[in-house]
Amino acid sequence: MSTTTRETTIEADETLPIIRITREFDAPPERVFAAHVDPDDVVRWLGPHGYTMTLQRWDAETGGGYRYTHVSPDGGEYRFFGSFHEVRPAERIVQTFTFEGFGDSVALETMTLTALDGGRTRITGTSLFDSVAARDAMLASGMETGVVEGYERLDALLLDA
Amino acid sequence: MSTTTRETTIEADETLPIIRITREFDAPPERVFAAHVDPDDVVRWLGPHGYTMTLQRWDAETGGGYRYTHVSPDGGEYRFFGSFHEVRPAERIVQTFTFEGFGDSVALETMTLTALDGGRTRITGTSLFDSVAARDAMLASGMETGVVEGYERLDALLLDA
Repeated sequence: MSTTTRETTIEADETLPIIRITREFDAPPERVFAAHVDPDDVVRWLGPHGYTMTLQRWDAETGGGYRYTHVSPDGGEYRFFGSFHEVRPAERIVQTFTFEGFGDSVALETMTLTALDGGRTRITGTSLFDSVAARDAMLASGMETGVVEGYERLDALLLDA
Repeated sequence: MSTTTRETTIEADETLPIIRITREFDAPPERVFAAHVDPDDVVRWLGPHGYTMTLQRWDAETGGGYRYTHVSPDGGEYRFFGSFHEVRPAERIVQTFTFEGFGDSVALETMTLTALDGGRTRITGTSLFDSVAARDAMLASGMETGVVEGYERLDALLLDA
């Protein structure tokens, strides 16, 4: 396990309103994919440490939708909703994403799973915004902490399974 | 009716991979909105003159999805699918869009309806692509003809109703 890379890379594109995220996991694509679509798994890892997540809706399939709430340790509520454009098992998830605190801003998110040697997986995520200002507002909102800590929780879930 | 403007404006953004479309209609927002979500209306106007449209799925509501086929006069078939991020009656529709002939390219489309004097409506559409190349490929695909002719058919539908 000495070669394991668990660093989350989060990059803003130089010219387009895009955020790119790369992360590797110690589980095969089928398992990492399942953790992104199975509602019992999702509530165990998505979001920062110490938050609880409740699903108002979760239909993780092509043409489906979702709506969920994160509750912080001090009781603050954060609501998100979106639709699933395409859910292609173990390969690709394309979905929309709105953080209700950001008004009408919508991001289009694409996640691709790539099998690595040793039963590992690299996920590559792209979040596309309709303006550079909206992208930068998302970066400034604390989303990096949420992503990094969420993937640490996902590591633990994958070890546990 | 002498002041009616029925010109469709289609513009490519200078720096972002966006297409913007503006069009006015001789009907109020409620009616123009209905023509975009009612499946019986949609199949009567969406797409170029002479095409027939069949719906494999049509759930035009927040978190819903769609899949349809256009058949050209010479029998060519063109398939499209996507999801509805948000459907806000008479105000706004946000959806994803894939033309299956374009591989995995996905656009995020936002349409806003604005009430004008005289019971008329202006719609403003934005299609956001993940690269300038994908946006330019869509412009080169003949989409402009489809949009312009579709709105001509929508004019006729609105007069007919």
